[in-house]
Amino acid sequence: MDALFDRHQPTLAAALQAVQERGYWSAYPEIPSGKIYGETAKDDGLASYNARLGKRFDMPGHPATTRLGAEISPFGPTLGITYPAADARTLIAASRAAAPLWAAAPVETRVGICLEILARLNRISFEIANAVMHTTGQAFAMAFQAGGPHAQDRGLEAVAYAFSEMTRTPGQAVWTKPQGRAEPIVLEKHWRIVPRGVSLVIGCQTFPTWNSYPGLFASLATGNTVIVKPHPGAILPLAITVSVIRQVLTEEGFDANIALLAADASGAEITCDLVLNDAVSIIDYTGSNSFGDWVRRHAGDAQIYTEEAGVNSIAVAATDDFTGMCANIAFSLSLYSGQMCTAPQNIYVPRSGIKTNHGLKSFDEVAVGIVAAIDALLADTARAAGICGAIANPATMTRIEAARGLGKIIRDSAPINTGDQRTATPLVLVVDSDNTNAHEEERFGPIAFIVGVADAADGIEKAATLAHRKGAITAALYDTDEGRVDAAVDAFAKAGVNLSINLTGGIFVNQSAAFSDFHVTGANPAGSASLTDTAFVANRFRTVMWRRPKAPDRITA
Amino acid sequence: MDALFDRHQPTLAAALQAVQERGYWSAYPEIPSGKIYGETAKDDGLASYNARLGKRFDMPGHPATTRLGAEISPFGPTLGITYPAADARTLIAASRAAAPLWAAAPVETRVGICLEILARLNRISFEIANAVMHTTGQAFAMAFQAGGPHAQDRGLEAVAYAFSEMTRTPGQAVWTKPQGRAEPIVLEKHWRIVPRGVSLVIGCQTFPTWNSYPGLFASLATGNTVIVKPHPGAILPLAITVSVIRQVLTEEGFDANIALLAADASGAEITCDLVLNDAVSIIDYTGSNSFGDWVRRHAGDAQIYTEEAGVNSIAVAATDDFTGMCANIAFSLSLYSGQMCTAPQNIYVPRSGIKTNHGLKSFDEVAVGIVAAIDALLADTARAAGICGAIANPATMTRIEAARGLGKIIRDSAPINTGDQRTATPLVLVVDSDNTNAHEEERFGPIAFIVGVADAADGIEKAATLAHRKGAITAALYDTDEGRVDAAVDAFAKAGVNLSINLTGGIFVNQSAAFSDFHVTGANPAGSASLTDTAFVANRFRTVMWRRPKAPDRITA
Repeated sequence: MDALFDRHQPTLAAALQAVQERGYWSAYPEIPSGKIYGETAKDDGLASYNARLGKRFDMPGHPATTRLGAEISPFGPTLGITYPAADARTLIAASRAAAPLWAAAPVETRVGICLEILARLNRISFEIANAVMHTTGQAFAMAFQAGGPHAQDRGLEAVAYAFSEMTRTPGQAVWTKPQGRAEPIVLEKHWRIVPRGVSLVIGCQTFPTWNSYPGLFASLATGNTVIVKPHPGAILPLAITVSVIRQVLTEEGFDANIALLAADASGAEITCDLVLNDAVSIIDYTGSNSFGDWVRRHAGDAQIYTEEAGVNSIAVAATDDFTGMCANIAFSLSLYSGQMCTAPQNIYVPRSGIKTNHGLKSFDEVAVGIVAAIDALLADTARAAGICGAIANPATMTRIEAARGLGKIIRDSAPINTGDQRTATPLVLVVDSDNTNAHEEERFGPIAFIVGVADAADGIEKAATLAHRKGAITAALYDTDEGRVDAAVDAFAKAGVNLSINLTGGIFVNQSAAFSDFHVTGANPAGSASLTDTAFVANRFRTVMWRRPKAPDRITA
Repeated sequence: MDALFDRHQPTLAAALQAVQERGYWSAYPEIPSGKIYGETAKDDGLASYNARLGKRFDMPGHPATTRLGAEISPFGPTLGITYPAADARTLIAASRAAAPLWAAAPVETRVGICLEILARLNRISFEIANAVMHTTGQAFAMAFQAGGPHAQDRGLEAVAYAFSEMTRTPGQAVWTKPQGRAEPIVLEKHWRIVPRGVSLVIGCQTFPTWNSYPGLFASLATGNTVIVKPHPGAILPLAITVSVIRQVLTEEGFDANIALLAADASGAEITCDLVLNDAVSIIDYTGSNSFGDWVRRHAGDAQIYTEEAGVNSIAVAATDDFTGMCANIAFSLSLYSGQMCTAPQNIYVPRSGIKTNHGLKSFDEVAVGIVAAIDALLADTARAAGICGAIANPATMTRIEAARGLGKIIRDSAPINTGDQRTATPLVLVVDSDNTNAHEEERFGPIAFIVGVADAADGIEKAATLAHRKGAITAALYDTDEGRVDAAVDAFAKAGVNLSINLTGGIFVNQSAAFSDFHVTGANPAGSASLTDTAFVANRFRTVMWRRPKAPDRITA
């Protein structure tokens, strides 16, 4: 067989079993511990990251007509790294030139290489954590988990699905059709996997690796060449990734240009040129709905998988753990300052209040409870920094400012440390659904609305309807009435959104676990991809046959 | 479980095994024999067909604002049947109203119903054969096989893939995440299948059932409601089909309008209205590339699966059975007068001739050999009628007339019986690839080109390039040089076309067997669907989750 495939086969087998059972499983430890990653791993990772600052990022053999890079850490420093860059046409020509041998490689060879790449990425998780932290504004712990092991898990999940699908049809078969008393017709048939061509992965700033790895690895495993187009503000994590991919490809005798980095500059992006090129036959896109629409209209025959925006809601109907509910919501609103596609924005609360284990709580008491929980959570500034991180994009600051006029402010957004322009705690506004629909637009960042509704059923209906109409990646419900829970399950399922019910402990609506939770359903405007289901991999390749009469002397073989 | 599912479970299990092994298998016998279908089945089927002529085709409960129908048998008689008809909006409203209970039905219930429908369709294969014969012009034997059992096999194949995919993710799981020394986080998770919505199946005239059943049954099994839009000239086979579906749905307590017939009139088709409607979220289309392009541009967010046109080629390089080769090609060109999407059009032959078991044969000798084989095959008029059938569409006659000027006629098309305007044997033209590209357009019908090329490799290259550029559903090669065969396998695979090599016996390039051959690869312009691969079913539904903390007393359960 294949040495890399053999080496990583146990990981693949475990992943395949995990996606079938969908219980908890992870291939790459999420705890940034020296006991797991080596006692010097943390220091080594930081040193590797620091060694890249202010320097050229070298990628031997990568097409480059120029160099660029203007990343600035949301925590302050300028990265000062420049990357090899070229126009779309040059990149695509290099990608196509690298394609034939990769397309012809056995499935096990490609999958073995993907698994080796993931293993190496895992080993440098601390370096990637620093790169993710200083391009996204995530606090270190989150940057490590989401940017490292969790992203790697999502990549492995995609490889597992791709492997499963590519090996579903046998490589060959003998087809023997009886002909009554005459000799049967006997054909030998052979099938091969044919990739679609050049795959374009368009990354986002907030989760450069987590959102890119599924498409990247799904396309790579299925034999396509890949061009990775990072957000101009978050190039480094994907540059490191592409660099590792190219290293492994080279070692295994393949053309490194099977994986390319399409670094570009803010205001001079080459994304449109790449999308418009006919050679691009797969596009994985994470970003806004408006550019998503543009991609759909201009992508020609390319297969498109998207994760776009939506408005996530929590419907509060009743709870038997009022404190736990408020604490859980507070954490979901605060984590990475609401810059997660899974973060809730709207909290629908009945105007007449809700039943709780502390008796009836009025609408205002619920609102105050949530605000108090946020304040408590973020009271310690070091802890607040560890939860909120920094704001990735200045536009988010502008959005917070604009949002202040959209409702009654019951908790204002503020820097974690006085005067810091780069951090922002949650802004919480109270609105009534009868008077405004300001909350029905996505307001990306630490902006939340507590929305007055007629009653529990009205809140559920409004949340589900909004998810159906504008898209949503997550939804949450707090309720104690099992009949109403059943109805809510139906309503949110119909809106195509995953629902979390009564989360009060150390698990949050924002969290989506590889091998168990499908991320995005593909069933509402928040995206057409689902990470990772079969539909995400099955159309990245086609199966082509040749058949011929089986030679008589081989019929009985 | 479910009574219908239980009853047909052995058939489903066998189908699932067959698609995995891809040897020969069929659920529905293709031989129109009284021993299999009952001694009176043939007469009963004809009687049932005759009883429909000149009458209203009743569909209890089907939306109808008018009645229409103007089918004329290619063999002569007017059918005189009228069908319930309504505008697109009325049909879609009825389809949506029927949707919720179908979407909510358990997978086993829906799959059991689909399997029961297929079993009942199989029982009335003789009636369907007459309906197919007198709308498509297929001779009876072919109408029986392709319109009956083979179509049913393709429907079953789609149901099997859909079932496999829908049951790949468990309905529920317990997710237990360790928390070091603390209690683990334990969630219960539940997944459900959510269909996309209204599915539109646009049928063609030549294979009304064979080309429609895969999409129809794939959508139905995955919980979508289905609107079947037949070609105005071939309504009856799909009206019978929809009627059987509605009967079974009603018996099982579902709304019959889960399956609707969108009968319309030539020149006043409602296809565009249906495609443009936002509620239509899946489109299965068989037809021309030009209307296929229109569908793609106007379908909005609907998922589209197509089988469009292409130019199928045979590359002749060498043979060790010259007589067998000529006979095989002759049959492929004659069968249903070339009105198959799998029929070859171009036969590339080296100008300097080919090596055969009868010595070197010049270009002209190869051409003459093929023509002589056609003449021999069709010498007996009864046999010729049984092979060629009739011409489905008068436009094909016009095309034959126009094609006469495109090259040197070495065999003219003619009626099977003198003066018959409804039959046409193959027109065979000789052209040279250096002088014309007339053969590079699809000329649907009994029109074939023998194309002079530089040598064997040139013929293979031209055939593969044309497949890549214009699309092709089949390709064939005759060669004895194994090195060249290997190169051809690579070239045709790259062009995304299934290749048949050295067929000389009772199997033909036109034939595509369910459970073994993927029909259309989706890898060239001849279509985006592949019947049936996972990609054909995986995106017809999405998987949506709800999760909640598992109650402590149920954790150990």
